[in-house]
Amino acid sequence: MISPTELIQAITSDLEKIRESSPLVLSLTNSVVQPLTANLLLAVGAVAAMLHDVNEVVDMLRAGTGGLLINLGTLTREQGETMQTAVREASRLGIPWVLDPVAVGPLSLRTKVAEQLKKEKPSIIRGNASEIMTLAGYSSTTKGPESTTSSTDALQAAKELAQQTGAVVLVTGRTDYSTDGHQVIATENGHEMMSKVTGVGCSMGALAAACVSVSPDPFQAAISTAVLMGIAGEMAFEKSPTPGSFAVSLLDCLYTISPEDIAQKARIVRL
Amino acid sequence: MISPTELIQAITSDLEKIRESSPLVLSLTNSVVQPLTANLLLAVGAVAAMLHDVNEVVDMLRAGTGGLLINLGTLTREQGETMQTAVREASRLGIPWVLDPVAVGPLSLRTKVAEQLKKEKPSIIRGNASEIMTLAGYSSTTKGPESTTSSTDALQAAKELAQQTGAVVLVTGRTDYSTDGHQVIATENGHEMMSKVTGVGCSMGALAAACVSVSPDPFQAAISTAVLMGIAGEMAFEKSPTPGSFAVSLLDCLYTISPEDIAQKARIVRL
Amino acid sequence: MISPTELIQAITSDLEKIRESSPLVLSLTNSVVQPLTANLLLAVGAVAAMLHDVNEVVDMLRAGTGGLLINLGTLTREQGETMQTAVREASRLGIPWVLDPVAVGPLSLRTKVAEQLKKEKPSIIRGNASEIMTLAGYSSTTKGPESTTSSTDALQAAKELAQQTGAVVLVTGRTDYSTDGHQVIATENGHEMMSKVTGVGCSMGALAAACVSVSPDPFQAAISTAVLMGIAGEMAFEKSPTPGSFAVSLLDCLYTISPEDIAQKARIVRL
Repeated sequence: MISPTELIQAITSDLEKIRESSPLVLSLTNSVVQPLTANLLLAVGAVAAMLHDVNEVVDMLRAGTGGLLINLGTLTREQGETMQTAVREASRLGIPWVLDPVAVGPLSLRTKVAEQLKKEKPSIIRGNASEIMTLAGYSSTTKGPESTTSSTDALQAAKELAQQTGAVVLVTGRTDYSTDGHQVIATENGHEMMSKVTGVGCSMGALAAACVSVSPDPFQAAISTAVLMGIAGEMAFEKSPTPGSFAVSLLDCLYTISPEDIAQKARIVRL
Repeated sequence: MISPTELIQAITSDLEKIRESSPLVLSLTNSVVQPLTANLLLAVGAVAAMLHDVNEVVDMLRAGTGGLLINLGTLTREQGETMQTAVREASRLGIPWVLDPVAVGPLSLRTKVAEQLKKEKPSIIRGNASEIMTLAGYSSTTKGPESTTSSTDALQAAKELAQQTGAVVLVTGRTDYSTDGHQVIATENGHEMMSKVTGVGCSMGALAAACVSVSPDPFQAAISTAVLMGIAGEMAFEKSPTPGSFAVSLLDCLYTISPEDIAQKARIVRL
Repeated sequence: MISPTELIQAITSDLEKIRESSPLVLSLTNSVVQPLTANLLLAVGAVAAMLHDVNEVVDMLRAGTGGLLINLGTLTREQGETMQTAVREASRLGIPWVLDPVAVGPLSLRTKVAEQLKKEKPSIIRGNASEIMTLAGYSSTTKGPESTTSSTDALQAAKELAQQTGAVVLVTGRTDYSTDGHQVIATENGHEMMSKVTGVGCSMGALAAACVSVSPDPFQAAISTAVLMGIAGEMAFEKSPTPGSFAVSLLDCLYTISPEDIAQKARIVRL
């Protein structure tokens, strides 16, 4: 087991590798958050690609994609099929991929598609407590996208989901939990203003795809994702405490975030 | 009839209810304005949902949606059918819904779909003078999305459309008119810079869906929409007189707008 | 041949004509960049229209469209067919149109569609070196959307493509080249931060459609596009050197850019 200091060095290393190697991240994501997701990837140092045609998705995976994001936010049946093809091709090519099962539970199509996709060996699954519990097989008691599930239940579900799928599970909320089914790291960076801007959560999935494309392992990549996004959110709120300008500052802060910022601000709790 | 002072109290009350109860607003809206629309709903205190699959739309309506927006801006035939299903389910569930017939008149598909949708008991129809006149059955003399129709003609059309459909009609322009077919309230908040940012008008439809989900009646909700958006536009222009930063400030101002701002800035004209 | 001073006057004239006449630009563009593209058109003084339904595209072309953009960034087969219909109707009506063959080469569907579209008499083709070389018939040696092609090769390809198609070709990069197949004007405005914001390149295609709708000829329109966008990028970077706020300032600067800014900052190199 590595120490918090080593973890912080690993987070910094992931960020520097993204900035140096500019991994190409292909995001099959919902239509609402495409601009923010692409801008966030560019701000952090990655290259952003987004496509709709299934053959072009395969072309792009073969043309140097480093990481793939699958986000179910505005899913259609046709996109569900494209995503199946994409994750199989990614697995075949050894490209790590991230599943973001937005709002599974109350919504039928995506819940079915997420059940299929989770069997295709995602590297990381990122969701809020309600989404992770649904995907782990717990019946959801919440309505709509907001969740008040207890974090203990969610953590248990996350561990089970990690064991079922072989993925690292990142449960985001006030505290973020990363687990590979055995180890758990809790991190407490972030700011509630992040929930006042559409696509911040979804962009975290894209950041995870960037991190996992350069990180030594998906567990580290999930922790890096939670901490980098959370610190950028805190820094952005200090500059811009209202949501329009906060969204702008979030991109600025992901562009400028330094090793010193990470060392000073990372809040890592071992469980 | 209530007084301007009572109207201002009712506008303030609508805003406070949105902030306190965070109504879920489902927006079936055009692809260009999805990010701004979602961010505006979040800034004012609502929860934003956007979906494409028709079954998921029904799922979401049943899972706690407070208000529904139907915006025809980048309509496809398939989306037209989804919208039909959505408004019927909303009516069945008693969920108020807002019709925004963007650019009806010169564009054929949406003009046909809007004619069908207006029969499905929208709570509010929001449009510019040209759109309202087209939907009321007047032949449009304008070309393209811009309108130079006289406000007297538009007001007459709005009253007729309200009587035909049972909806409150909100005609937006330099002066905004709200009418239930009998009463008319004119409000004069807003700034022309609002027309230099894509989606400000369309987001007004989403704000109307948020207001109507908490307001005592759709007539009040239409007035609250026009005044809140208009005041936020004025406040944003004072801070940021150029369109990129104006758009950012508009969200900031909707987040910070206070009862005092409303009391000081609302410009209500009874007709 | 006109002098640099005359060129600068012509650029200023194009900008003023856009601001005075507010041409309607119809953009069939990729889903990621729709909001920025529409906002950029509004900021520079044009009117922005975006549609999906093929019949409505034809309606809009007939209802006063001044220029048409075809951008292949997130192409689907259905959109490819709509684009074919659109460019034929535009040609029939004498409406100038701009082709932006985003990422042709590694991606199969768009490469095929771009080959068809280039035969339909575009007024301007805008692309980076790799895209222009692919479209001119050179086999691409690059992978993914980024290019390291030499500018000499790209310029040769651009001239050949212009001669093949009758279009003016605008190759964008550190130096931008405009060519009608015989004359070449190199311009050196812009800032690398423009590549850190999604859609800046794609919006340049929309600006080209606005310019070509008012400019005396497509060659001048291409030069105006490169210089106006580049200067706005330089001005934006001076105000806002990080990508979130840079994107906001870019719109502000296109709104405020003056004849003096153009006269002082334009960097025109005759070849």
